[in-house]
Amino acid sequence: MTDIRYHVAGIGNAIVDVLVHAEDGLLTRLGLDKGVMTLIDGAQAERIYESLPPGMECSGGSAANTIVGIASLGGRAAYMGKVKDDQLGRVFRHDIASAGASFQTAAAAEGPATARCFVLVTPDAQRTMLTYLGACTEFGPGDVDEAVIANAAVTYLEGYLYDPPLAKQAFLKAAGIAHEAGRLVSLSLSDPFCVSRHRAEFMDLVSGHVDILFANDAEIMALFETDDFDEALRRVRGHAAVAAVTRGAKGSLVVTDDDVIVVACDPVAHVVDTTGAGDLYAAGFLHGFTQGRDLAACARLGGIAAGEIISHIGARPAQSLAALVAAKLG
Amino acid sequence: MTDIRYHVAGIGNAIVDVLVHAEDGLLTRLGLDKGVMTLIDGAQAERIYESLPPGMECSGGSAANTIVGIASLGGRAAYMGKVKDDQLGRVFRHDIASAGASFQTAAAAEGPATARCFVLVTPDAQRTMLTYLGACTEFGPGDVDEAVIANAAVTYLEGYLYDPPLAKQAFLKAAGIAHEAGRLVSLSLSDPFCVSRHRAEFMDLVSGHVDILFANDAEIMALFETDDFDEALRRVRGHAAVAAVTRGAKGSLVVTDDDVIVVACDPVAHVVDTTGAGDLYAAGFLHGFTQGRDLAACARLGGIAAGEIISHIGARPAQSLAALVAAKLG
Repeated sequence: MTDIRYHVAGIGNAIVDVLVHAEDGLLTRLGLDKGVMTLIDGAQAERIYESLPPGMECSGGSAANTIVGIASLGGRAAYMGKVKDDQLGRVFRHDIASAGASFQTAAAAEGPATARCFVLVTPDAQRTMLTYLGACTEFGPGDVDEAVIANAAVTYLEGYLYDPPLAKQAFLKAAGIAHEAGRLVSLSLSDPFCVSRHRAEFMDLVSGHVDILFANDAEIMALFETDDFDEALRRVRGHAAVAAVTRGAKGSLVVTDDDVIVVACDPVAHVVDTTGAGDLYAAGFLHGFTQGRDLAACARLGGIAAGEIISHIGARPAQSLAALVAAKLG
Repeated sequence: MTDIRYHVAGIGNAIVDVLVHAEDGLLTRLGLDKGVMTLIDGAQAERIYESLPPGMECSGGSAANTIVGIASLGGRAAYMGKVKDDQLGRVFRHDIASAGASFQTAAAAEGPATARCFVLVTPDAQRTMLTYLGACTEFGPGDVDEAVIANAAVTYLEGYLYDPPLAKQAFLKAAGIAHEAGRLVSLSLSDPFCVSRHRAEFMDLVSGHVDILFANDAEIMALFETDDFDEALRRVRGHAAVAAVTRGAKGSLVVTDDDVIVVACDPVAHVVDTTGAGDLYAAGFLHGFTQGRDLAACARLGGIAAGEIISHIGARPAQSLAALVAAKLG
């Protein structure tokens, strides 16, 4: 992989998280399934916000969290996503650029506000999300920077991009550019309900366009419409060249055409908030991959990065992941 | 104290904190003294923000933190302060109202943006602050709600109100209304440099208008222009009826005309961020005071509330302080 400008270029919904501590009763009152992401419109966002306890605002967005993770690990990373030119949009831009990633997508001057995701963190450290897509609905193929994609070893796309209608075209355009340039395409399935909403399209993608697939157990089973995890693992083989499947505290599995690698993760003393666990797993994995590490090492790096993110509130690293990895692996 | 609608009414600069993890080297590069608050203008705020690492936004403001603490302890609390009607202003309003405090001050439709404070948290858990006052400069006597002040057992004022010029008039108006109605006035000295900036006025206040004074050791010494803590304690006697002086991990002292009560505080296992320690001490103390507790119990409650706030990032409680107090004191 010579001549690359970026190790990873990520495209995703550019979102500011509003993190709130919530009791299970609040999920019940709002009629929410724990652990999943639900889309809400602007009016719902206003109404729900009024019923939420005090919060903490922190930049989020699945692929953005991954890209910041890669920068924190020492990789060269670029991000594309759409904010509005408003206060939260400027916060989002600051947080990704100051983490060391390139973020050149123009902000929308008009239209809906920068996207927000209410992240309800329950005492069991699970997160349940309500997303108002806002300015993300303005992201389209014109926002895909061809030079960046063509010069990134891996282009990383979040499944959530299939929710705003225009972003899907941007997704396919980026995947096409990457493959045309001889680069790799990686997809995160994002959420089991997101998979269900767009299952046929995701199946096409995974069969024809995705080299490295990220999913957790629920997502991979949703993709293959099975309740049998082992069957889902068997069926993913032959689609993506590499599928990294996370299983929470049980670690992860890496499935290739001829192998299944089982990698444990270090226990985390005190799990505070699981927001971003999958995003940072992908960061660690892709960082290892673009540094030429073997798949087991990639999965191990994914576990270390995910372990950091779940030990505190918020989905962005609270410390240098490069320093953390150096301390753990020497 | 019959016929009160609120236990405590607070007036302060309405500020959203931008919390960032910072190494000591960043303070050096920015030429900042650790632990103090420096005022910056809008242009400086823009420039400094660019040099800061990724942050987390959280409602702050000294008196606002105290008022939220009182609501979390189960007291009835009201707040007055000025935000702009912008995204961060709406975040500030949500966070104080959803904590259970009344906040009726109209937002500014025009003029500077909602105030921000960059809070640089160093690895030693100390915080160093840079404040852009923004919309706080629009707060004036017309924003003082006479009915609220006259019906609050204690009106609590932060010394930082002496930085924006109009707020000082609001401060004096509120103190006058409170005393006219037979209520008490409490002042926090806020910061040693703030004391130095407004020392003569603070001396007048403490001598003639303040019933309950809050300060830490550095602030009380700045007020009396002495390096001798014991001398400062001697000199505060005869001014405010009650002076509660905090000393970090050493606990606090409560000075009255005829007594000095020394109260230790429980050790905190892991101090993460000292932002809001003084604000939450005042919350615990004033909550005890307005519930008729003795001064030693007030100081103990102050220590418990401060202990919670320094155990995590941010200056707003991450749990119900009423439940915490019940667990600690039974």
